[in-house]
Amino acid sequence: MADTLVAEQAANRTTVQVDLGSRSYPIKIGRSLLAEAGAEIANVLPGARLAVVTDETVARFHLDALRTSLDAASLDHTVITVPPGESTKCYAEFERVCDEVLAARLERGDAVVALGGGVVGDLTGYVAASVRRGMVFVQLPTTLLAQVDSSVGGKTGINSRHGKNLIGAFHQPALVLADTGILDTLPMRDFRAGYAEVVKYGLLGDAAFFAWLEDNWQAIFSGGPEREEAVARSCQAKADVVAADELESGRRALLNLGHTFGHALEAAVSYETSRLVHGEGVSIGMMLAHEFSERLGLIGPETVERVHKHLSDAGLPVKIQDIPGQLPPAETFLDIIAQDKKVTRGALTFILTRGIGEAFVEKGVEPALVTDFLKEKLVP
Amino acid sequence: MADTLVAEQAANRTTVQVDLGSRSYPIKIGRSLLAEAGAEIANVLPGARLAVVTDETVARFHLDALRTSLDAASLDHTVITVPPGESTKCYAEFERVCDEVLAARLERGDAVVALGGGVVGDLTGYVAASVRRGMVFVQLPTTLLAQVDSSVGGKTGINSRHGKNLIGAFHQPALVLADTGILDTLPMRDFRAGYAEVVKYGLLGDAAFFAWLEDNWQAIFSGGPEREEAVARSCQAKADVVAADELESGRRALLNLGHTFGHALEAAVSYETSRLVHGEGVSIGMMLAHEFSERLGLIGPETVERVHKHLSDAGLPVKIQDIPGQLPPAETFLDIIAQDKKVTRGALTFILTRGIGEAFVEKGVEPALVTDFLKEKLVP
Repeated sequence: MADTLVAEQAANRTTVQVDLGSRSYPIKIGRSLLAEAGAEIANVLPGARLAVVTDETVARFHLDALRTSLDAASLDHTVITVPPGESTKCYAEFERVCDEVLAARLERGDAVVALGGGVVGDLTGYVAASVRRGMVFVQLPTTLLAQVDSSVGGKTGINSRHGKNLIGAFHQPALVLADTGILDTLPMRDFRAGYAEVVKYGLLGDAAFFAWLEDNWQAIFSGGPEREEAVARSCQAKADVVAADELESGRRALLNLGHTFGHALEAAVSYETSRLVHGEGVSIGMMLAHEFSERLGLIGPETVERVHKHLSDAGLPVKIQDIPGQLPPAETFLDIIAQDKKVTRGALTFILTRGIGEAFVEKGVEPALVTDFLKEKLVP
Repeated sequence: MADTLVAEQAANRTTVQVDLGSRSYPIKIGRSLLAEAGAEIANVLPGARLAVVTDETVARFHLDALRTSLDAASLDHTVITVPPGESTKCYAEFERVCDEVLAARLERGDAVVALGGGVVGDLTGYVAASVRRGMVFVQLPTTLLAQVDSSVGGKTGINSRHGKNLIGAFHQPALVLADTGILDTLPMRDFRAGYAEVVKYGLLGDAAFFAWLEDNWQAIFSGGPEREEAVARSCQAKADVVAADELESGRRALLNLGHTFGHALEAAVSYETSRLVHGEGVSIGMMLAHEFSERLGLIGPETVERVHKHLSDAGLPVKIQDIPGQLPPAETFLDIIAQDKKVTRGALTFILTRGIGEAFVEKGVEPALVTDFLKEKLVP
């Protein structure tokens, strides 16, 4: 699959092909792609009518550019705007957006387009999966996190009062356009949080990529061509895992490196993004996964130190104490982890590691070990 | 695929295997299957926990038998009851049932079971498709219509204010148990309406089956072993079409024989089931499809007369005037037909026929021809 990462020198574009049989699709990566979205979409879906779903914040910065591009390609489109923020991933917005897509009289071959970050992508993808039992879905991810994570894998959905992402569908897009220039307008904190997921791909399975990130992270942040390479290599890494395990039965669990601890931290602060955003939770979670692996004798302190150095250099939080405010005791974290949907019939599943790029799934972790470990980590 | 219709003489059972690669599943057909549901489900899903979704009416007649059977097989289960009737296929009930399945703490390998007719099956199937992005789905259809129609094909969904079944998913069950004894408790009007769909399978592609129905319909109604054979041959006919076209791009449209006119009639009475239920609309719709085919010179009057005789013998309505109360003018029907989701880019699609068992898809029907035809048919 490595040969599908094709550098298109002329257009300064990179394309990652996600190989899923009849559901395969390309991710195009490059600066100014939003301005060319009309031509790109018309190329894949000639004559299609579109419903563009976006949030109020993204609309303010980027909707005009997209509409101009769609008009230039003579693509008839309607715009549906949702409020920004995680609370938009709810049944009520799902119903409203579905009904607006239907009110626009889109037919089954027409497309629903997500212009935004993870929230817009997850909600819109689930709408696309559901209206008329499946419409064409196009993603224009506008955050680094969405470009390297949500744009690959087909996971869509909304939240229930019982937990996040519990209602949804696997629905692959027909096309993803990741405009890396848009990321210049992203708040630094959001860029950093997305970068944590980029680092994850190195840590879970590609030591050379991690080493490359150590050398090039500043150019990625400042917007050099290394940014496109980082996005492409991340998408390719996830695409390789997903192609091997589309419906998440085995190897795909590796993508949860840092996420079991990370989700627990997010839940512990009640998903208050002023205290912790997802990527920050993943950063601390990856440190904890490495420290826990060290505790189990799987890796040495020099590996932990190397991960710690890179994440702190990039400005990411690296320990629980980096989260402002009070946190619950270790036992509460264990309860949260045990309720996590990645728990299989009572046993605790963790992604552990034997070195940089050598993560693995461990399904039989003793809860008491985790509690003891977290107690130490929670000491102020 | 004909050899998959296996007569299991010993148990007085018939199994139709729906061949869809990794999503293949069996439909078991026979009397008293509900009492054996526990053993049958435990056989396919050992150790699974279940959420049984049913409506208040079905629960009154059949829930105790099912629970006794599940208890005997030591299958842990929770019951979720919805109101009877089409209005249950709505966003609000979808949300409520999803949340109740989650509240029961079912994991991804556990199963959601539909005990009921089409409404319960469609809603429950969509819930199963959506919770945790896909749970195992088991169907226990309790009406003739649900046994011969909804139990094959994987179509699930709810209604939007823009139309019926516009929000949903393709989600195949793991197992269908069609207890033909349950049909003894069905009101005669509902049994007849389901029978219209049985006749449809003969008319669309199997002249020998239609001739067999002419000879055996009374035994099917009265509960002889011909009933199991009729259900099995109907399921097999639909399974063959669906296997060839799972996501409804071509041949599957044949299953809409009688449905374009039929849906328009249902919409014209605002889905008031006191005036017209779905199968009655299909019966009149099939007559109109044959009369329209005669008008186009595709079949002779003797074919129309033969279809007319069988449907009337079975007590089904055969002309628009059989619907009580006022109906809108022909132009309104055209508007309804043009809004139907089976319309492709403006052209009218109808299922027409060249004889008993020789239906075909005609995508370029001239709207004016249909209007003229309906004007005549609407004369009181």
